[in-house]
This record gives sequence, structure tokens and C-alpha cells, in this order.
Amino acid sequence: VAEREDFRDVLARKRDGRELTEDEVRGFVLAYARGDVGDPVAAAFLMAAYIRGLSVAETTAMTRAMIDSGDVLPLESVSRPTVDKHSTGGVADGVTLVFAPLAASVGLAVAKLSGRGLGHTGGTLDKLEAIPGFRTALTVEELEAQVERVGCAVAGQTADLVPADGALYALRDATATVASIPLIAASIMSKKLAVETDLILLDVKAGDGAFMKNPAAAGELAEACVSLAAQWDRPCRAAVTDMSQPLGTAVGNALDVAEAIRVLRGDEAGRLRDLAVFFVARALTILDGSTQETARAETEAALSDGRAAEAFARMIEAQDGDPRAVDDPDGILPVAPVRTDVEAPRDAWLASVETEAVGRAAMALGAGRVHKGDPVDPAVGVELFPKVGDAVRAGDLLGRIHARDAEAAARAKAQVLEALGWSDERVDALPLTYAWVGEAPRT
Amino acid sequence: VAEREDFRDVLARKRDGRELTEDEVRGFVLAYARGDVGDPVAAAFLMAAYIRGLSVAETTAMTRAMIDSGDVLPLESVSRPTVDKHSTGGVADGVTLVFAPLAASVGLAVAKLSGRGLGHTGGTLDKLEAIPGFRTALTVEELEAQVERVGCAVAGQTADLVPADGALYALRDATATVASIPLIAASIMSKKLAVETDLILLDVKAGDGAFMKNPAAAGELAEACVSLAAQWDRPCRAAVTDMSQPLGTAVGNALDVAEAIRVLRGDEAGRLRDLAVFFVARALTILDGSTQETARAETEAALSDGRAAEAFARMIEAQDGDPRAVDDPDGILPVAPVRTDVEAPRDAWLASVETEAVGRAAMALGAGRVHKGDPVDPAVGVELFPKVGDAVRAGDLLGRIHARDAEAAARAKAQVLEALGWSDERVDALPLTYAWVGEAPRT
Repeated sequence: VAEREDFRDVLARKRDGRELTEDEVRGFVLAYARGDVGDPVAAAFLMAAYIRGLSVAETTAMTRAMIDSGDVLPLESVSRPTVDKHSTGGVADGVTLVFAPLAASVGLAVAKLSGRGLGHTGGTLDKLEAIPGFRTALTVEELEAQVERVGCAVAGQTADLVPADGALYALRDATATVASIPLIAASIMSKKLAVETDLILLDVKAGDGAFMKNPAAAGELAEACVSLAAQWDRPCRAAVTDMSQPLGTAVGNALDVAEAIRVLRGDEAGRLRDLAVFFVARALTILDGSTQETARAETEAALSDGRAAEAFARMIEAQDGDPRAVDDPDGILPVAPVRTDVEAPRDAWLASVETEAVGRAAMALGAGRVHKGDPVDPAVGVELFPKVGDAVRAGDLLGRIHARDAEAAARAKAQVLEALGWSDERVDALPLTYAWVGEAPRT
Repeated sequence: VAEREDFRDVLARKRDGRELTEDEVRGFVLAYARGDVGDPVAAAFLMAAYIRGLSVAETTAMTRAMIDSGDVLPLESVSRPTVDKHSTGGVADGVTLVFAPLAASVGLAVAKLSGRGLGHTGGTLDKLEAIPGFRTALTVEELEAQVERVGCAVAGQTADLVPADGALYALRDATATVASIPLIAASIMSKKLAVETDLILLDVKAGDGAFMKNPAAAGELAEACVSLAAQWDRPCRAAVTDMSQPLGTAVGNALDVAEAIRVLRGDEAGRLRDLAVFFVARALTILDGSTQETARAETEAALSDGRAAEAFARMIEAQDGDPRAVDDPDGILPVAPVRTDVEAPRDAWLASVETEAVGRAAMALGAGRVHKGDPVDPAVGVELFPKVGDAVRAGDLLGRIHARDAEAAARAKAQVLEALGWSDERVDALPLTYAWVGEAPRT
């Protein structure tokens, strides 16, 4: 009797490497969501699941139970084709900030529930809140109405959708059980499947700045997520993209927003812009049947003719932020009191970037948080311009540290320089994407 | 910095099957004892340690940290040779009740800190508290003084000795991480090593009524415990004994005490008496250099000439219990209102006993507890007389159910009959002991 009630038999089976039934997984997850299973028991389950793995059937059952623990967001009142884009998290990864208004500006609708940053990776909500007045706490009704009216909305995860996920994620973070492919897939996809968009796009990062350290592991996670979507008959594609260097040039909050604005106004080229265009063009191809060439041309036109920047201004305004940030980021966004240039130490090719170290330098400046719930400083951060394969000359401007004081700036500058590897011989640029999962149409 | 403080790096290393350093294990255990590491993190560690195992060095470090988290009990004021005896827990396992007064009656001193029962296994404290007035909450000063004056004392674990163990054990119980040899060895031996007796005797049970289901696993646990003692230069011997049937005839609290009294008065033969004599004689051999023959004769004499029973009466009196229980158990110990006989279903040899099922039948009557802190009923329980290999005739008295009401009695009777396996052919008796670990003198 005792074992039945307190799930010790379920724990023992997973501990011993046996596969749980759908009912066992479901019962456990729903009991945890109700508060009938405590954190210690759940922590032991997570560790057993991390070490022993979860089968596809177990992962599906976990995802289904997490979705069923809360509400879903049907988006029925949105007339345009809807798309959600999710990144597994990286450094200088402002794709969502560009993607949402850019997709809206070409006729799609983006309903995006985002998270906050933790550790060396930034969070979209923290970045948007660097815009004075910006409000990320939307009700689901506000979110849906804004998506229909403006074409895009980015809000915080609400407690009504997948309530089990927030608590489970915090527990995984505390217990060294984050980097498990089935647990990550269940966490991501329960949130994506609970918002009923017409298309789910996933950006699975691979490299030392990401949870998945190499493209093979990231590919496994991408496959696991796409397989889950298939069980719900939901169109889903996943790109495995490079995170062995920062994607854009800005690692911070206001700095990230400023970079997104430059891309949206057509003022900045590079990998961040390329990846955002890639995702929007793919979404157009899938949702309105455009050819890839037409979709790409249409997407790039929205960047150069002002539509994308305007869509961002409308989104900011709809969420009570100051839309003048789009025209005058330097005047509206918060600025750090100390700025220090970082110069190239010698003539060389940039050969490598310790990406996580760059993220940690920005975190140490105050841009990120060590513990959940810590405040972040919107103004501070790191800018780093060259990419692997670029040639520089001694004294060239490599980047800028934005800090609260000179001491913190000096420390961050040393950390950034320490993170860069140089070569006297030519170095190839890194690929932007490694794989694209889920292209074959499913029936 | 974050990882260093919150032990996520330690968790991750154990999760990945790597060996932790002594400092890592020690830091983690002491932080848990101080309350700086929470139950969820400790639960994840326990699950990782269960699945990945702990090396001898890790187990030693864990044991040392657990001891160092509290006080030790040097027993310096006790003039007689001191011995502690610990059982890993079984069904009808009243050895401690017999051992303590019997050893005291032959000139040894027994200082014993005991636990309460959980699940299908009984606890010595619960049994002793069936004696009216008996007090198990002794201070360490009271314990030590009583051992010197009376020769034996059995008390509850105090919060000052190995404070980390109680919380860790409850956590293991809740998270299906009890049956890990290194974790069991660290838990047992930290408590044994914190009480500085001249000899530690361990009774490691093997069989379906014990945590260790077979003699090989029990032998591993015995070896692990004896090895730990060697690192502290503490004499320690372990017997691997049979728990594939109840050891004595009584499964309850007052019933267990009554059986111990019968043995101590020389009125009952059988496996419980044999095992208690075995342990006391071994202790005499080791501590005063007697030959095995002399030690055994001396021990058996104490049972037949009244010294052992008198020692028990003195111990009961010293702990505020009613010593008349020894002369008149039926009159002094609590009695259940309903008694139901269990008869043999046919002419046959008893071939097997589902020992845990018998323990659970007694627990369901109220003799044991499902959850820590539940009360137990001192009067109820099961008596079961025949042992594997005994021949019975249809209608013979097999045992008795002692219950609060007729319905509970009928249920327990059916459960006990269900637990017995019969054979039409002769069946061999089971061994009492399988192995004796630690005999070779260590230097």
C-alpha cells in the first residue's frame, strides 16, 4: 500500500533501468504537479531518469502529462498562420528578438512564451525588459489579442500553461540533471505543444556555449523534439545551429536589443541576421507555400524597407514599452557608466572563442544571474565583433565592455581576451547550421 | 562560483560515474548535516550513489563525515569489556532483547543504541516499550552509568550522535535508495563507530525478510562494514544469518518481549536462542580469550541458572519498566483482545515461508508502521511456530494471531497461511548462519 501511494516502486523501477508504463509516468508527473509528490522524491526520479535514460514512450508520456497538468492556448482567434520559434539557449542569441517582428512583418503571427536567463545564457524576457516600460506579464487573453492585432507578442510563461515545468526545471537546475535529452525534450515540447501554433521551429544550439556541446548531441535532441511533435500531429522543424562562438555581437540585455534593432532596420549583416532570415523564410515556405527563393527575398525586403523595424515598434508599444527605442536606441535604452574598448593583441586570425567564458564574463558584469530570481542589470554586457576565421591587426577594435565600474570592466576585458584563441595561419569560418530536422512532410 | 557552493559539480561527477575525492564527499555530507544542502539535492546524490556505487574510499569518507557531524560516546567510565551488536533487520528478530542481558550476565557490558521499526521489520525500541513504563529516551550520561551499574542498556539513537544519519535514512526510505551496500554500510558503521565499544558484532540478515535478499549480497555488506571498522582500528565481526524464514516465533512487540523472556529463562529452544548464544559466546571468546567451548558452556549456563533473566529484570528496572514482566509476562505485558489459532491445512513438510509477507501481516495488524512516526500497537502480532523442514499433521497448531478485532485476525490468518509453502516430501532445515566475516585478527 505504501509503495503505491508514494511512488517508491516507480522510482525503484527507473533506478534499476526498467521502462515505466505510460500510466506510471503520467501518475508520477501529475502527482508532482498537484503537490502530492515532494521535491526530494522528484529529484531522485530526475537523477534516475538522467542516468538510466527515458524511452520514446516514457518521454511522450511525460510530455503528455506535463501538458495535461495545465491549460492549453488554442490561438483560435488568430486569423494569420501562427508560428513559434524556440532556442535551446546560447550566447549573443538574439534570434527571437529579430524573428518575432520580422515574421509578423511578412504576414505571419508569432505567439511566443519565453523564459529568463540562467547562468551564462541570456533570456529573451530579460532583454525585452531593458526597454523602458516593457511589460512581459501578459494574460493569455492579452497575448492572443495582441498577436491578432500586431502580429507578434512575447510574454512570460504563465502559471496556467504546463505548471509542472517551472518547478521541475528549477529542480533539475539544482540537482545537475539539466543536460538530459529526454528531460530537455519533454520540457521544451510540453510548452511548445501547449500553444497550438501552425508551426513549431526549434533552434537547437551546438557548441561550448550551449547545453549540447556538439552537433551530434544537438541532433539527437532535435530528433527527440521533432518526434514528440509528430505524435501530436504538429508540424515542427528543428535546425541544429552553431554555438561554438557567440551568434551575434552583443552579450547583455539593452545591448542585445540594440543589436536586434540594427538588424531589423537593415543596418547590420552577419550571423544573427542570417539565422533570423533563415527561420522566417523557412516558416513562410512551410506556411504559405512560397518557394525558398521568394520567401528569402520577401524576408530580406522587410528588413530593408522598414516593415520589420515598424513591427517591432508596434510590438513594443502594445506591451507598454517605449517604441522610440527603435528609432533612437542610444537615447532610450539604458547605458552603462563605464565603456572600455578591447583591442586585438596581435596580427592574427581568430581561431576560437570560449563561448561560455564570454557569457560568464557578461554574467559577472551583472547581465545574467547565478540563481533564479536574482535581478539583472539591463545596461551592462560585452560586445565582441570578430567571428572565427576573421583576420585582425594588432590594435583593431575587437569589442567593448559595458560595466558599472572600471574594476569590473578591467576584469571582464581580461576574461574576454582570455577566451579568444588566435592563429598565425588562415582559419575557416564556422558553419552557421549543421542540420535541419523534420523536413520530410509527415502525414 | 555557483557550482562550488551548491555542490552541483559534485552531483554531476557522481552522476557520470566518477569517483569523488574525500574532501568532496566530506564537504557534501557536512553541508547536509548543517542544513546548507537541501533534501532535493541530497536525494539526487543518493540516487546517483545508489546507481553508480561508492568506492571504499568514498564510503570511508562518508562514514567519517557522518561521525564527525556529531559527538562520540567514549564509554570511558565502563570497567567491563564493552560490546555492541547490530542487526540489519528482520522478522521475529529479537536477538538484541536476548543478547544484551545475556552478555551482561556473563560479565560483558552492552551499550546499545537502537532504532524503531519501519515497514515489515520490527524495531527493538518499539518492542521494549511494550513493557509498561519502559523508557528508551536516555541521555548519554544515563546510558553510560547504567551500562557500568547493570551491564546493559538499550536506548534510542540520540540527536547528538551522527545527527546526519536520521535525516539521510528518512530520505533514502522516501526515495527508493535504501538497498545500497555502501549507503547501508556508512549508515550502520557511523553509528557503531561513534560508540567506542571494544567489539562490534554485526548480524547481517540474508533472505526475503531482509534488505539483502541472498547470502552473497549480505556477505558483501558484511565485508563492507568490517572493512570500515578496520580503518578505525576497531575490532568487528559480522555473521551472515538466515532471514528466509522468521528467526523466532513471535512477530509483534509484547509477543517478541515474551519470547525473549522465555529464551532468557531457559524455557525456549530454537533458532533465536541459538543465534543469541552464538553471538554472546563469540564476544566472550574475543574479549576475554575463552575457548569457544568454555564460552558456549558459560553462556548456556547463564540461561539455565537464572542469571540472564535476572539481568533483563535489572535492565528493565533501571529504565523505569516493570521488572515483574520477567516473572509474569502474561500478567504484565499488554494482551490483544482477539486470539485466533492457525492450523496446518494438511500433513506435509514446511518448505518455505514468505517472510516479508508474515512481517507485513503483523504490520497490518498494527504491530509495525508504514510511515515514520506512526504509532504501533504493542499487543498485536503473529506467532508462527514451525520452521522450514518441520513436519506437521493436518490440524496441528501452526501459530496464533493476536488482533484488535475478529476481522483483522481473519485477514492476518489468511495472509499467514498464504505465506507458507508445503511439500509432500522431506525438506531440509535451513542453515542458521552462512558466513562469519572478520575472524582473522587485524593489526
